[in-house]
Amino acid sequence: MQLGLVGLGKMGFNMRERLRRGGHTVIGYDPRPEVTDVATLADLAGQLAAPRVVWVMVPSGPVTDETIRSLADVLEAGDLVIDGGNSRYTEDGPHAKLLADKGISFIDAGVSGGIWGLEEGYGLMVGGSEADVARVMPIFDTLRPEGPVADGFVHAGPVGAGHYAKMVHNGIEYGLMMAYAEGYELLAAEDLIADPQAVIQAWTNGTVVRSWLQQLLAKALAEDPDLAAISGYTEDSGEGRWTVEEAISHRVPTPVIAASLFARFASRQEDSPTMKAVSALRNQFGGHAVKRVGLSG
Amino acid sequence: MQLGLVGLGKMGFNMRERLRRGGHTVIGYDPRPEVTDVATLADLAGQLAAPRVVWVMVPSGPVTDETIRSLADVLEAGDLVIDGGNSRYTEDGPHAKLLADKGISFIDAGVSGGIWGLEEGYGLMVGGSEADVARVMPIFDTLRPEGPVADGFVHAGPVGAGHYAKMVHNGIEYGLMMAYAEGYELLAAEDLIADPQAVIQAWTNGTVVRSWLQQLLAKALAEDPDLAAISGYTEDSGEGRWTVEEAISHRVPTPVIAASLFARFASRQEDSPTMKAVSALRNQFGGHAVKRVGLSG
Amino acid sequence: MQLGLVGLGKMGFNMRERLRRGGHTVIGYDPRPEVTDVATLADLAGQLAAPRVVWVMVPSGPVTDETIRSLADVLEAGDLVIDGGNSRYTEDGPHAKLLADKGISFIDAGVSGGIWGLEEGYGLMVGGSEADVARVMPIFDTLRPEGPVADGFVHAGPVGAGHYAKMVHNGIEYGLMMAYAEGYELLAAEDLIADPQAVIQAWTNGTVVRSWLQQLLAKALAEDPDLAAISGYTEDSGEGRWTVEEAISHRVPTPVIAASLFARFASRQEDSPTMKAVSALRNQFGGHAVKRVGLSG
Amino acid sequence: MQLGLVGLGKMGFNMRERLRRGGHTVIGYDPRPEVTDVATLADLAGQLAAPRVVWVMVPSGPVTDETIRSLADVLEAGDLVIDGGNSRYTEDGPHAKLLADKGISFIDAGVSGGIWGLEEGYGLMVGGSEADVARVMPIFDTLRPEGPVADGFVHAGPVGAGHYAKMVHNGIEYGLMMAYAEGYELLAAEDLIADPQAVIQAWTNGTVVRSWLQQLLAKALAEDPDLAAISGYTEDSGEGRWTVEEAISHRVPTPVIAASLFARFASRQEDSPTMKAVSALRNQFGGHAVKRVGLSG
Repeated sequence: MQLGLVGLGKMGFNMRERLRRGGHTVIGYDPRPEVTDVATLADLAGQLAAPRVVWVMVPSGPVTDETIRSLADVLEAGDLVIDGGNSRYTEDGPHAKLLADKGISFIDAGVSGGIWGLEEGYGLMVGGSEADVARVMPIFDTLRPEGPVADGFVHAGPVGAGHYAKMVHNGIEYGLMMAYAEGYELLAAEDLIADPQAVIQAWTNGTVVRSWLQQLLAKALAEDPDLAAISGYTEDSGEGRWTVEEAISHRVPTPVIAASLFARFASRQEDSPTMKAVSALRNQFGGHAVKRVGLSG
Repeated sequence: MQLGLVGLGKMGFNMRERLRRGGHTVIGYDPRPEVTDVATLADLAGQLAAPRVVWVMVPSGPVTDETIRSLADVLEAGDLVIDGGNSRYTEDGPHAKLLADKGISFIDAGVSGGIWGLEEGYGLMVGGSEADVARVMPIFDTLRPEGPVADGFVHAGPVGAGHYAKMVHNGIEYGLMMAYAEGYELLAAEDLIADPQAVIQAWTNGTVVRSWLQQLLAKALAEDPDLAAISGYTEDSGEGRWTVEEAISHRVPTPVIAASLFARFASRQEDSPTMKAVSALRNQFGGHAVKRVGLSG
Repeated sequence: MQLGLVGLGKMGFNMRERLRRGGHTVIGYDPRPEVTDVATLADLAGQLAAPRVVWVMVPSGPVTDETIRSLADVLEAGDLVIDGGNSRYTEDGPHAKLLADKGISFIDAGVSGGIWGLEEGYGLMVGGSEADVARVMPIFDTLRPEGPVADGFVHAGPVGAGHYAKMVHNGIEYGLMMAYAEGYELLAAEDLIADPQAVIQAWTNGTVVRSWLQQLLAKALAEDPDLAAISGYTEDSGEGRWTVEEAISHRVPTPVIAASLFARFASRQEDSPTMKAVSALRNQFGGHAVKRVGLSG
Repeated sequence: MQLGLVGLGKMGFNMRERLRRGGHTVIGYDPRPEVTDVATLADLAGQLAAPRVVWVMVPSGPVTDETIRSLADVLEAGDLVIDGGNSRYTEDGPHAKLLADKGISFIDAGVSGGIWGLEEGYGLMVGGSEADVARVMPIFDTLRPEGPVADGFVHAGPVGAGHYAKMVHNGIEYGLMMAYAEGYELLAAEDLIADPQAVIQAWTNGTVVRSWLQQLLAKALAEDPDLAAISGYTEDSGEGRWTVEEAISHRVPTPVIAASLFARFASRQEDSPTMKAVSALRNQFGGHAVKRVGLSG
């Protein structure tokens, strides 16, 4: 089928390619002339036959918000917009309403798989009405991995459910990575272990901990055995923060995901004010303070 | 080749079967007459041609210790003992020494895969000398999964390294399970999500979080959507505790593995003395206390 | 000086008493006829000489919001409103603006001390302009404990700073209580310790861990040695949740405060969905599952 | 009464002084000539009238062990040794037995208070027999702070109980310091807060979080408002590690104490291998990897 695709970055570019390989007609828009198919969003709308489907694949936050507002101007009643970026699920309702006011439908789609998606397909979690999802299903079927539909695609619920599921997916991802990483450090710290990489590699088949991330860790260590070229400074892109905020909102204890998030925060501090304060306290009671501190009541 | 196998429980029984299918001659010993091949450990030794190889697959701790001591009595110089149970790696050195005093070799082997190992093969992490490992390699080759050796088997280092690697494997496993489980609870807590099982099932292909455990969780939820038949009471078998103890010993921060361990401890408490104390404190300052407490200095 | 006081619950009732003992004229309003001095907020305004000062001491959230809106109607330019409840600091800006539109000033005041404040005084953290704080200082001086001003009162910054400081105070409080409570459980778990209460009592003088909360814990255990009458079910009133949300917003790692918050969440669950999922996973790979789960790519 | 005191470091030196002020006859031994009263442990024994009491106040571990062995040689039946250092409680049993074999009694004493103890007195937690504790009570009475006995001294149980109680005391201390420190960082991170020191100072009177550590933190910040002269690198002296190990041994969840311990470990790492591994994983799936990784089963 015919699809407009806004945003041809690392994800969108590959998705256009995968969709074209699957026989779809994709018209892509991107501000960079070297990758775009059309000059403006209005051109994009002009080249698509109504009713149109436009997939938005741009950075979450203001850029997504602005893109959806612009599409509301150039699209018309009966069209459908999919937000495939990593938007916070709480933004989906307002976006859906904004578009619905013009008769335009909305689907939120969580997309997982990174750079491997072009070849392996993308794991998809979508939110929206039954009718809207059914309408776009040919697109989803091409983007998702081969195999049973239910193993790589889920219609998770109404608008917002797709991004919520993707948020939780990423929260789990934080915890999984941290668990493997802690284990790696323990292997590297123990003299008995000749080669941590070989141990992690050997978990590929048969073990309880085998996974895609386990294989990627083995691969990373094969390329750089001491991870000498890699800093511990670790960014986070929002989903981890939102997951813990949702946990708080739902009163769900998530010690593992929160610990994984905090470890990222800590990795970005040159020195920790918290630990400076702990150190200052030890200093105070441990022998260097000279003035008496009474405990008043 | 010929192998003695002590312990024909859930793991040992299946391993005997897999080894026999692989063409090895296995003589199994177990105190239960219905599964054993011989009446005593002495019989076991008597039926094996020297130099013998005996695999011990019994519960870790006293039972393993006693078994190895008994084998030291019935085996002779040139024989080799493998401890394939979940022994703490610190016990391997003493066991190796005990046997070495009689000229008997020792290998420690961490075995992963649970009940699936019979068909899929067992992930193996072993510790010992090069010569000893080479000698038993035909057994390891049959037990491990098909595919490249390095993907399902590792000679991790000298005696102790196999069980250390297995301990870390299980510590990671605690963290992975907890990460998925926290994510499950968040999905179940959110009204937008129509069916948490469907979301987790959809992570099977293409996503960053795909793994064997993820598939098992989807399977468990397919069998019992609300996990209504399952209690949160969760045992631990030692490796998680040892992993955190090793982390402390190596001064390695492992917040995720420790949180996963503590969550198991908490799951087994009817009421938490810690939280009773917190509650009592809130009670004291929040309005029900009647006597004044001064702060003395 | 003259003060209107809205809300005569556990906190407000005692504050009226302490202020009157201090020589101030306090007109209190509460919907409960048995404690109120006036029938309506309009009466309250009518009985105060302009320019008025009105202290709001009602539950945070909608009740506070509604009270401030009502005061905006019955007060006039030049008056001043203090929110002394546990409002989230992000609500202070909007409240200040709402009042400023009518020429009414606003101060946010965090108040600590619970039921002990009547006799011991209340720890105060306030936010607002220099002029506004100076104007109300006689009230603050009576409410705060005796001793140096700086030991029981702080003008923490502009509007919002008082409630922010109080929020952090309560976040710390969560961590302190949890630290003592974990220690209590360890004492109670160890047979060597004859009487945990006696140990905690003995920390009152001379030790590094002496504090008001430590004394309250000793007192609680003296009243009920096994805390038999107290459930571990522990509520939270918002500040702990907000503190962790602020930590996330500021990218500050707060593992201790977050762990204390999650422990409260967990204390209120009859069974933990997270641990049910962990338990289900152990069940799947550990021996009861019967169907093979392949790991697709 | 008469007392031998082995170890005249920061703690022992002050304790000798406090005991002498209290009217006791103290003969101190230390390898440093400038502080010692006698040349050798044998001299120490020689100058004390039998039955002797000797207090050991030296670094825990090998130094304490060696000192107690040496005392076993120079003391005689009827004498009594007190270990007042930070020994692990599990070492008390063997030490007691070693001495008991020669008819010498043993008491373990946890001592809290640091450099403030000289003037304020030392919080004491002791383990041993009723008779032994009664015999040394005059010494304890002089060392402990003024006020009710039970507020600064506890006979916690049999041999080992004193050091166990002190270990838990220090574990709690880790958690308390971390809670305050996290709160400090949150105050420092928020622009609304004019001066974190002033806020923490204002918690001295009336608040729920008031404590000796809170006052020390206010004092440290008064001396160095940004803690600019203090590094976050934070040592640990063993009790925190032992506390978590005991928690594991007793199956007691201690998330707060463990998080505080791990934060110290992390503070001493230049770069975190765990976070390097997390970063490497993000790198692998996020866009820089070039080779396909299949997920084998």
